[in-house]
Amino acid sequence: MSEAFDAVDVIRAKRDRQPLSDEQIDWVIDAYTRGAVADEQMSALAMAVLLNGMERREIARWTDAMIASGERMDFSSLSRPTADKHSTGGVGDKITLPLAPLVAACGVAVPQLSGRGLGHTGGTLDKLESIPGWAATLSNEQMLAQLEDVGAVICAAGDGLAPADKKLYALRDVTGTVEAIPLIASSIMSKKIAEGTGALVLDVKVGTGAFMKDADQARELASTMVALGTDAGVRTVALLTDMATPLGLTAGNALEVQESVEVLSGGGPADVVELTVTLAREMLAAAGKDDVDPADALKDGRAMDVWRRMISAQGGDPEAALPTAAESQVVTADTDGTLTRLDALQVGVAAWRLGAGRARKEDPVQAGAGVQLHAKPGDTVRAGQPLMTLHTDTPDRFARAQESLAGAWTIGAAATPTPLVIDRIG
Amino acid sequence: MSEAFDAVDVIRAKRDRQPLSDEQIDWVIDAYTRGAVADEQMSALAMAVLLNGMERREIARWTDAMIASGERMDFSSLSRPTADKHSTGGVGDKITLPLAPLVAACGVAVPQLSGRGLGHTGGTLDKLESIPGWAATLSNEQMLAQLEDVGAVICAAGDGLAPADKKLYALRDVTGTVEAIPLIASSIMSKKIAEGTGALVLDVKVGTGAFMKDADQARELASTMVALGTDAGVRTVALLTDMATPLGLTAGNALEVQESVEVLSGGGPADVVELTVTLAREMLAAAGKDDVDPADALKDGRAMDVWRRMISAQGGDPEAALPTAAESQVVTADTDGTLTRLDALQVGVAAWRLGAGRARKEDPVQAGAGVQLHAKPGDTVRAGQPLMTLHTDTPDRFARAQESLAGAWTIGAAATPTPLVIDRIG
Repeated sequence: MSEAFDAVDVIRAKRDRQPLSDEQIDWVIDAYTRGAVADEQMSALAMAVLLNGMERREIARWTDAMIASGERMDFSSLSRPTADKHSTGGVGDKITLPLAPLVAACGVAVPQLSGRGLGHTGGTLDKLESIPGWAATLSNEQMLAQLEDVGAVICAAGDGLAPADKKLYALRDVTGTVEAIPLIASSIMSKKIAEGTGALVLDVKVGTGAFMKDADQARELASTMVALGTDAGVRTVALLTDMATPLGLTAGNALEVQESVEVLSGGGPADVVELTVTLAREMLAAAGKDDVDPADALKDGRAMDVWRRMISAQGGDPEAALPTAAESQVVTADTDGTLTRLDALQVGVAAWRLGAGRARKEDPVQAGAGVQLHAKPGDTVRAGQPLMTLHTDTPDRFARAQESLAGAWTIGAAATPTPLVIDRIG
Repeated sequence: MSEAFDAVDVIRAKRDRQPLSDEQIDWVIDAYTRGAVADEQMSALAMAVLLNGMERREIARWTDAMIASGERMDFSSLSRPTADKHSTGGVGDKITLPLAPLVAACGVAVPQLSGRGLGHTGGTLDKLESIPGWAATLSNEQMLAQLEDVGAVICAAGDGLAPADKKLYALRDVTGTVEAIPLIASSIMSKKIAEGTGALVLDVKVGTGAFMKDADQARELASTMVALGTDAGVRTVALLTDMATPLGLTAGNALEVQESVEVLSGGGPADVVELTVTLAREMLAAAGKDDVDPADALKDGRAMDVWRRMISAQGGDPEAALPTAAESQVVTADTDGTLTRLDALQVGVAAWRLGAGRARKEDPVQAGAGVQLHAKPGDTVRAGQPLMTLHTDTPDRFARAQESLAGAWTIGAAATPTPLVIDRIG
């Protein structure tokens, strides 16, 4: 079969800082999905994109081409509007768990297609899989029925959505080409647009525990994604939120489910509650329901009711005891003072090394493993007081987890409070 | 087996403009040769090297690592010194053919390991293979015996020399990563150093028909290679020579052999003679034989005598008639004046399209195909006078060859002569 372009010409164009034409982009994504462009060609192109960038038009076309590689879902038959949230990932970021039932309780359907974790940030599906019986896989029909009936679904993205992205993401992961804003933005947005949500709120994390270490990069990623969503007819807004320190008091699968249930019960850590309610407001507003206050639905138990139905609908037992790790070890403060810093990345790596995350796609995770925090920046601590508890089923992991915590916190005179929400774009 | 490094970390380092350590370079070349670093990882690294560069130390180590991937030859048992020449490739560049026997006739052995052509520049082996009976493949023992006996060998490089380079070169060819000076320099020099020559003269071509389009790039490549050779104990010098216009009056396999034989007979085009003698002087000087004038050996037939013995030693019949193409077509001047420009690249592409070159490694070439020039820049021409003759066995190729010649020459008032040798480095 004769090809419309030569892969080497497309790579050379981007290598030499020329923008790719619409036709070149359509062809290269399609040909890569078909296997006519080889992995080694796509990785060279990805590196050229990472180092030389893409214009907005190129990113939009690249995103469209990835959407066109697979199926598109359609929620227009639902009796209520849809809104989805996507977080770029952080340590202790369990917000999807309380957020999806909360927004559903306020009358907006939440079709949350999620992934498993890789590296130091946990995956939403890994967390929910710590609930006995809960299953991540649903057919499109089951998903639609659950959205109509319960209003919220958190499930695994099917293979049919943006298969080009799936193939490209796996390639970027092994070729040092993950950290390219055009490729990150198009990867996220191709899946969200193909998913067919009417509104989308992006939680772009900034800080040591996030993918984006500084606010300028995060702002660029956020505005790129907002433009992509808006142009595709999805009402899209992005919040830049702090990921210098872990979110909440837990990092680990069952530990985070437990904390989410506390939030749904009207308790839980203040930062988790604040971010959940803030994101819920944005989702409701984007879906045209800004007359509803999600804080009420959290207090009066309506969100918890949806949670129980959502978990049950996917075979989970919302009343079952969550797994706990076999062994634990306490880490204590070495001096009196105020905890002024607690590094998100280091806590995330510790949780990962304890067994909460995986190094390779095929690795299992431990449901009970992770880190439980007993103090957060701003809290007063005394020498000898527990700062955190490490949990694992495999105690030989404690030593490496402790190593990753070296210098992870500072105890000083006074903490400067940092806002949770740094910026809003949209 | 546990690896010393993670390929992604090495790629990221170069991507983020950090120099690679000696250990990282040794590992990545070895692991790539073994298959522990995948093609898609090496191509991403090659693109990062192309766009972010390498320091001299990195290039030297990269070259050493490629040499270490295979065997090294040793010519120290020969009764005379050795000198080799490498050209970066140009249109009509048949200089190796008269040069190797000429230098051998002056008492210096020439172990010329050559390649086949790809794209618009021809390959030395393709040219010699148009001689009936001549075979490119020799064992190391046969090569050494012929060097001692005849003094000159032009043969195919064995698989044992720098296998890492062989694998990497094939990868670069399909991933748009050929044009990286560190990778070009290390590719050429790893093979030449592993080959074991005592002296090396580099002919770095500059101009439209060359790999390097401008003199600054060519100078950087030349000085990089001279430093690599010198550091490895090979007396190395580089000439920058013009490739804005084809060398000599022929581009094509048998056509170029015919022209080379004319030069060895004391005739031939002035530019081919000048470059052959200039390079021979450099090779003799680098091998410590600067008391011999190669111009004499060309005139008195000693070079031709070595040519005959060199061709015969590899099964060729130096007296046999060379193949000619079945069909030809004459291209004429459209106006009176002086030919002021004749584009090397366009002539090279025409010869390639006529069947002299190949688009893929596995394609055959036509021995008789190519372009024969009847005028060169500086010559006076009249309207209707033949400018060139196109030769091919497959006349359906004439149209595309003619297309590639559109605007390939200018007939004007007076030509500004350009020097053949632009610079000397070493």
